[in-house]
Amino acid sequence: MATAATPPPTTAASELNIDIPTNQPLFTRIRLAANPDVPVIHKMIYQMAAFDQRLADQCSATLFSKDNPFESFTVFLIEVSTKPFPSPSTTHHPKFTPIHKTLNVHPPVSDPELETFKSSTMEDEVFVAGFVLFFPNYTMSVAKPGFYIQDLFLRESYRRMGLGKMLLAAVARQAVAMGYGRVEWVVLDWNTNAIKFYEEMGAYVVKEWMVYRLIGDGLQAYAATNDLEKE
Amino acid sequence: MATAATPPPTTAASELNIDIPTNQPLFTRIRLAANPDVPVIHKMIYQMAAFDQRLADQCSATLFSKDNPFESFTVFLIEVSTKPFPSPSTTHHPKFTPIHKTLNVHPPVSDPELETFKSSTMEDEVFVAGFVLFFPNYTMSVAKPGFYIQDLFLRESYRRMGLGKMLLAAVARQAVAMGYGRVEWVVLDWNTNAIKFYEEMGAYVVKEWMVYRLIGDGLQAYAATNDLEKE
Repeated sequence: MATAATPPPTTAASELNIDIPTNQPLFTRIRLAANPDVPVIHKMIYQMAAFDQRLADQCSATLFSKDNPFESFTVFLIEVSTKPFPSPSTTHHPKFTPIHKTLNVHPPVSDPELETFKSSTMEDEVFVAGFVLFFPNYTMSVAKPGFYIQDLFLRESYRRMGLGKMLLAAVARQAVAMGYGRVEWVVLDWNTNAIKFYEEMGAYVVKEWMVYRLIGDGLQAYAATNDLEKE
Repeated sequence: MATAATPPPTTAASELNIDIPTNQPLFTRIRLAANPDVPVIHKMIYQMAAFDQRLADQCSATLFSKDNPFESFTVFLIEVSTKPFPSPSTTHHPKFTPIHKTLNVHPPVSDPELETFKSSTMEDEVFVAGFVLFFPNYTMSVAKPGFYIQDLFLRESYRRMGLGKMLLAAVARQAVAMGYGRVEWVVLDWNTNAIKFYEEMGAYVVKEWMVYRLIGDGLQAYAATNDLEKE
């Protein structure tokens, strides 16, 4: 999966800031993203190393099936607040109940981009910290579908406090809840920290597999190949 | 992608056979699979090395969205006949026009399992030779979806005559027709023939990527992890 890289230095040093010392609880929530979240997701994608300019205009047009969130690509957002989240949640979806967790021990948090990442839910003092993007995958040789995790991202201020684990576990839990058989993702082979983490959580590398890709001109050319000349 | 392994020896030596010498045309067609094709697809899956018994009962229940074939998992069947296919095709789907090709030069074909693989279309003398299974995949860092090819299979009698290329090209063509940006699949790193073929077609290996997987007990355990204890 694409994971966090160091974001470009922010120029908004004069913006609102949040500073949460370790002895103050940090309230977190994982919920389904919906179309009003697209602008904030875009901003996080800008912070990912792999960002591709062509994305910006197109992804908003294709986002989020409200009725069937897990049948196509799906985003879980993880949000944080210094105040407890309202209960029952205003962001409940019939197919996914938001997950709440209170972090009582965590590194000190300093977030200079707070206002930029306000939650679209309009709840007071709720801010988006990261997301995970996944979608179902299928094989005829295994009975059950699985989820494939494409992207996992946490904003710089919210790393190394377990939020990535929470997002992964939320996808695993959703897979189990739906009777799905597996969760898969891709990792860069030099990313030893990530590999250690994945193996500790019980995942294993699918040995001998190489991912092949056909894009751009190669794709166009192959789509037009004589291998498919019509009668 | 899962590819063909040597199938178990057939015990149906007395069944109908087809013998097509190289100087007789072999008519081929690629069409969308639909629910009546499930039994034949099951039989091909039995012939794949990776077959898992648990599949048999479950996959028929979840197969094939008739209205939106390319939004979830999709199967193209490749069929063969010694007679021209009827035109216009009886198997036309609004989102995919079957692809026809006549092979005038091909190895001699001898198919001892002909009756077992009759097409569900009830057309005379039309037989299923193989399939490709694929589904859309997504990333937030690229504007367009792609297709991921999970399984490609040709029955033993129909290999080494270009039908695999036809199936791959059909997926590439569909991706381009839908404005999608890429086609991806996985290959075993020791499968040098396949790798050579993929590189000749313009695909490249996504270096440094390792596929991680969480299944079974590991998945259950992680889904129940304290990392997600609720408030």
